Amino acid sequence: MTSPKNVAVLGATGSIGRAGLEVIAAHPDRFRAWAVVAQSRGTEIASLARACGALHVGLADEVAHDALAREWRGPGKLHGGTDAICALVAHPEVDVVLVGVAGAAGLAPTLAAARAGKRIALANKESMVMAGPIVRAICRATGAELIPVDSEHSAIFQALQCGRRADVKKVILTASGGALKAKTQAELEHVTPADALKHPTWSMGAKITIDSASLINKALEVVEARWLFDLEPTAIDVVVHPQSIVHSMVEFQDGAVIAQMSRPDMKLPIQYAFSHPERLGGLDVGFDLAAYRRLDFEAPDLARFPGLGLGFEAIRAGGTMGAVLNAANEVAVARFLAGALRFPRIAAGVEKTMARHRTVRDPDLPQVLDADAWAREEVLRCLA
Amino acid sequence: MTSPKNVAVLGATGSIGRAGLEVIAAHPDRFRAWAVVAQSRGTEIASLARACGALHVGLADEVAHDALAREWRGPGKLHGGTDAICALVAHPEVDVVLVGVAGAAGLAPTLAAARAGKRIALANKESMVMAGPIVRAICRATGAELIPVDSEHSAIFQALQCGRRADVKKVILTASGGALKAKTQAELEHVTPADALKHPTWSMGAKITIDSASLINKALEVVEARWLFDLEPTAIDVVVHPQSIVHSMVEFQDGAVIAQMSRPDMKLPIQYAFSHPERLGGLDVGFDLAAYRRLDFEAPDLARFPGLGLGFEAIRAGGTMGAVLNAANEVAVARFLAGALRFPRIAAGVEKTMARHRTVRDPDLPQVLDADAWAREEVLRCLA
Repeated sequence: MTSPKNVAVLGATGSIGRAGLEVIAAHPDRFRAWAVVAQSRGTEIASLARACGALHVGLADEVAHDALAREWRGPGKLHGGTDAICALVAHPEVDVVLVGVAGAAGLAPTLAAARAGKRIALANKESMVMAGPIVRAICRATGAELIPVDSEHSAIFQALQCGRRADVKKVILTASGGALKAKTQAELEHVTPADALKHPTWSMGAKITIDSASLINKALEVVEARWLFDLEPTAIDVVVHPQSIVHSMVEFQDGAVIAQMSRPDMKLPIQYAFSHPERLGGLDVGFDLAAYRRLDFEAPDLARFPGLGLGFEAIRAGGTMGAVLNAANEVAVARFLAGALRFPRIAAGVEKTMARHRTVRDPDLPQVLDADAWAREEVLRCLA
Repeated sequence: MTSPKNVAVLGATGSIGRAGLEVIAAHPDRFRAWAVVAQSRGTEIASLARACGALHVGLADEVAHDALAREWRGPGKLHGGTDAICALVAHPEVDVVLVGVAGAAGLAPTLAAARAGKRIALANKESMVMAGPIVRAICRATGAELIPVDSEHSAIFQALQCGRRADVKKVILTASGGALKAKTQAELEHVTPADALKHPTWSMGAKITIDSASLINKALEVVEARWLFDLEPTAIDVVVHPQSIVHSMVEFQDGAVIAQMSRPDMKLPIQYAFSHPERLGGLDVGFDLAAYRRLDFEAPDLARFPGLGLGFEAIRAGGTMGAVLNAANEVAVARFLAGALRFPRIAAGVEKTMARHRTVRDPDLPQVLDADAWAREEVLRCLA
């Protein structure tokens, strides 16, 4: 019997983090919540830390950390600020880093985990969208393992095992179609944040649920897939599959398509990222395809959901364009959630920002962060 | 560049054999039709041999061989009789043996290929149904590779690569449901051979098409899967999937289900069995899931199609029961095709024969052949 793997759970108060803690709790002989880290939710992280007995507790936001520190009595050591979190992630005792942080904030800890040669269970697509080639180069150099947690990319990661990389023809990402799949173009002009937050199959955070509705989530996943799996832009395809049972597919050059299916439950890809190449039981995952009766597939409608096309545009342009897509979208979605923007203007604003961007090829990290910062300002001008 | 693999195509005049020759013709740099063998169709095999330039030509039936021999002018050397075919299969120059022979007649050449340590592209499910443990033991001893060509078992063979064997929960065979899927129990009493031969998705020989309609084909595949993949009877499941796009699935203990899909085209699994672990292009295999629009799944109806249950009964009983299922069914189907039997009596006759059989555990080959011979007579008594 080997000792349990030490897991650092980043974004522990979010839906991925909580699912990760459930996986860890289901396998106390295999995994231990060594550290739990959140952005700023002090009360919640304190309660999670007590429940899972984490040795280390972190808050990326220093103000939130200082507030919690005044009343902290443990158990577990408290850490505050991004640098401290990155040091925690790189600690020699850490085996696996679950990056469940949403948005661009996931980049720094992902890079820290990569530099320290950890296994990275990556639920933060933004780090690959912004800086995929940089992250991959570091992983290659340090031996860090990058195992995707996004259900689509986990499915592709699994399906790729059925053949040699040279024989892959393309990967096919499935998209639920989101909450607004059935809306007409005219109706899309008037949807509210509440409409767009009604995701048909997955229960997730607000930002990603809006991205699902705009299909920009799938655009980001296209970019993520491009870098995670080193795929040519023409080797990535998207099909709409409303039931979210087939999580994605790989088509090989002999015409065989390997699909990974499961109940839509993020605990599955998280556990897989922890345990690969093993697969563990312990989750209540009964699967009865006959009970689903039918699975539907259709081509995405790029006229109503032009956001999807931006992902392909970003990988064709390459360089800093992924960072621009991601940053402009983060700002536009925040404006939409605040009620300050009509739904179709999210994609329109991002597209305009991308059109104004002068792509830097093979950027280094400062150039990526510059592009990110530039896009956050530029999109506001585009939306003005 | 390695030299092309020499393939012995058995059952060359049948649908599997012809598909195999198409695969070989598509990849002259990789494969060569070293031998083509048929049961008794002399004119056809002569014409196929000329077309593919086979070095050796065989007819298992000695009378048919003698007739062809009188006019044989080559090219290629002519061989006749089962022993000669088995010697051909074992020839040192043979790399791959495609066993496309239908029925119990496939057992002898499969055993010969296994003993000679060849790669066996196995489309003959009967050899595994009758003598699975014997074939496997020989393959283990000689290093022969057994790669299934049945689309379902090929799918399972591929999907198993996504995890460790210890983590497999079950395999799920898909069944098209056959030509009579929509018939009521009363209507099944009156179906003609012509009705039962209208397979919805696959174009195959008459015997297997009737077996598809009775679901006894799936019963045989359950037994085949049990021995090919060394599965417990409880680790095999069947789901009806009318479109025949998902060829089968493997469910792992973490809840992930890996499915293999493709257009229904036997050239794909045949080529895969030839090229594994590589996958080759060269087949016109465009796959567009969005074009299929929907895939349906339902539980099989054992009341209308009790033949399926016989497969599970056979693997629970083990030993010689698989051979009895197969032999009794061959005779009953021949009687149905001759118009001498009502459709539901096929399964009823097989079931009765199985009920009368005293299973021999861990049988040797003579005991298997005894059980086969016994069942062929007993089923006629049961049907009388």
